[in-house]
Amino acid sequence: MKINEEVAGLLEKVREKGPLVHHLTNYVTVNDCANITLAIGASPVMADDINEVKDMVSLASALVINIGTLNSRTVEAMLEAGKKANELGIPVVLDPVGAGATPYRTEVAKRILENIKLSVVRGNISEIKVLYGIDTITKGVDAAEIIAADSDKLAEEKEFAKAVAKKLNTVIAITGAVDIITDGEKLYTIENGHKIMSKVTGTGCMCTSLIGSYLGAGEDYLLAALSGVVSMGIAGEKANEKVEAEDLGTGSLKVYILDEIYKLNEETLLSRGKIYE
Amino acid sequence: MKINEEVAGLLEKVREKGPLVHHLTNYVTVNDCANITLAIGASPVMADDINEVKDMVSLASALVINIGTLNSRTVEAMLEAGKKANELGIPVVLDPVGAGATPYRTEVAKRILENIKLSVVRGNISEIKVLYGIDTITKGVDAAEIIAADSDKLAEEKEFAKAVAKKLNTVIAITGAVDIITDGEKLYTIENGHKIMSKVTGTGCMCTSLIGSYLGAGEDYLLAALSGVVSMGIAGEKANEKVEAEDLGTGSLKVYILDEIYKLNEETLLSRGKIYE
Amino acid sequence: MKINEEVAGLLEKVREKGPLVHHLTNYVTVNDCANITLAIGASPVMADDINEVKDMVSLASALVINIGTLNSRTVEAMLEAGKKANELGIPVVLDPVGAGATPYRTEVAKRILENIKLSVVRGNISEIKVLYGIDTITKGVDAAEIIAADSDKLAEEKEFAKAVAKKLNTVIAITGAVDIITDGEKLYTIENGHKIMSKVTGTGCMCTSLIGSYLGAGEDYLLAALSGVVSMGIAGEKANEKVEAEDLGTGSLKVYILDEIYKLNEETLLSRGKIYE
Repeated sequence: MKINEEVAGLLEKVREKGPLVHHLTNYVTVNDCANITLAIGASPVMADDINEVKDMVSLASALVINIGTLNSRTVEAMLEAGKKANELGIPVVLDPVGAGATPYRTEVAKRILENIKLSVVRGNISEIKVLYGIDTITKGVDAAEIIAADSDKLAEEKEFAKAVAKKLNTVIAITGAVDIITDGEKLYTIENGHKIMSKVTGTGCMCTSLIGSYLGAGEDYLLAALSGVVSMGIAGEKANEKVEAEDLGTGSLKVYILDEIYKLNEETLLSRGKIYE
Repeated sequence: MKINEEVAGLLEKVREKGPLVHHLTNYVTVNDCANITLAIGASPVMADDINEVKDMVSLASALVINIGTLNSRTVEAMLEAGKKANELGIPVVLDPVGAGATPYRTEVAKRILENIKLSVVRGNISEIKVLYGIDTITKGVDAAEIIAADSDKLAEEKEFAKAVAKKLNTVIAITGAVDIITDGEKLYTIENGHKIMSKVTGTGCMCTSLIGSYLGAGEDYLLAALSGVVSMGIAGEKANEKVEAEDLGTGSLKVYILDEIYKLNEETLLSRGKIYE
Repeated sequence: MKINEEVAGLLEKVREKGPLVHHLTNYVTVNDCANITLAIGASPVMADDINEVKDMVSLASALVINIGTLNSRTVEAMLEAGKKANELGIPVVLDPVGAGATPYRTEVAKRILENIKLSVVRGNISEIKVLYGIDTITKGVDAAEIIAADSDKLAEEKEFAKAVAKKLNTVIAITGAVDIITDGEKLYTIENGHKIMSKVTGTGCMCTSLIGSYLGAGEDYLLAALSGVVSMGIAGEKANEKVEAEDLGTGSLKVYILDEIYKLNEETLLSRGKIYE
């Protein structure tokens, strides 16, 4: 498929350029986010103090904002960093972790949306609904409604995703059993990945860091989002195959996901990528 | 043994219900705590900002408070979350990491004891002595007096554990070479685990997260504490067997502990659990 | 080589004494720092609140200060802890992560240098140049100029390292393709390690924690710095051999580095250590 070749081309660019990806992220999965950023070929930096975020983001090729463990100190730093990134034309990806779970979290997500021009937002369907303004109950940060693979529901979700992308004027990546990526006009679905990935914390956060890495290497936000999601999906399903073959569990799964991102190449992307228009 | 069957029954309930376990914990082992919570079948959330802890705990089935890297911001959030949990009847487990090491840490542990009704407290013998009011020198957070397996000393520790449970009106789980779990009346010892587990940071914290996961699925606090401790012990000894067989080390040990918790089932609990009344 | 035997002797002392190593460090790699400290045979504690750092460092045999994710709260705690360590004669090692990347980071590194007597500073060449007062652009925290293996450049770097050590009155460890360790008079180079180590976050931080562990067990700062660097280098190259043989990636590399530090012994140090005067 032509689109898989484009993803492979962008991966090549990440590895050539080694873009610096500035993260303001949570302390639960931050180590995995840094390591997956290195594994794909980019370079992470995790500074979050208000005294240095503007200087740090100025050195970066992309900014990742992840509200997994937000607090009043870091929220202000996120806003500062995001505004500076906008000023300099540096792409920003938002991971609205747990939006909807608490009023504070929802409010912070909305403040970010109102104050920062985002290139991509990646979340699960519940989080994205909250950003759109639909009341939904998010149960914590790891649980989420799953996008059904059945065709009626999926058609509905696709229309919803397009509407969000248009309203928020950004690329939307909704990840679940089937992933949906759209800029409001063009839309792709991806059918890679495996449900065991939800049993490791941070597979969503890591996917967002991959999107940040791809954003740092090219101009096409939709392609960057698509590349991050398909890379994570392929790594997850390959890692799961090893875990099953060796009768292991979710500790090994995380290690193997990082291994597979490090080893990801054009051949694997072309043979494994299940991207549909 | 009948008690092993009860543990297996509670594990089954965890996996059916997938309880949300809210953690206010340290930034050293937080990722492992989240992953072990997922591995056992529960769902972790790690929010610690005072603006959202009350809302978040309201969604949860259990609360874990771990003072490993306490600071003035998070201590207030711990107290708020704990009081809200008490109001709503949500069980709370405390891990008094390093109590006794510094006056501040001891004082915070005592403030938590005075302000929050705890369902379970899990710690090593030094930490539990500090909570009881015995002056003891805790050397950092990973080192601790070991409960001796010799019978005189053990008999003394068992009486001590009962006295603490009665005084603090909570289930006490003291982990060491032999683990002691008691509600002040009924008392169990557990002889699973392996000493190499003390060479991985967070095996105590992870055990506390497992207790939190079990607390979220049932009503019996003593059984939940017992289930967490025996699950961790079995996972640790199975992981160590693999590490020895494959000539590996403590990096692999942690990965395999998570794997073994993910794979834990009734058969393993019945054949491996060394729980004694 | 005689020096390798001295390193092996110091490793033995770490394992006998199990020194407590107090860390004020970043939240990205803190778990790996704790685990590598345990793996080498020491005992980590990560307290960073201003209310307890002085008490905690008083219990410790060495202090590690790492500015990877500094913020205004922890910077003050670093200064308090460092001053207390100086008062008590407890050795201090500084990891000036990302010095030069932002003015704030450079300023904090300099405040630490001015207020705390350091036993060892470990960084990459860019970071050390910033401490010396040479303007350099540090791109984030993981990227750095590499010390070239070609002889002219290396000779120049060696003279520079001696000058820094003299000016700052501390042992300097500059890690890169070739590592340079000097107290300003005596100088060693180390040629262990593998370039893949830069694809795992925290290999520098972990090296600093190893230096802290060795500092906690002996009096000779130069030997402690040398021991930390050569231990990390050997572990990294052995881990990489396994990763290549098993066709794995950087997720496994980190796990194996911890394994190799846990298994490190005199025989491996004598047969593998490439330390040159």
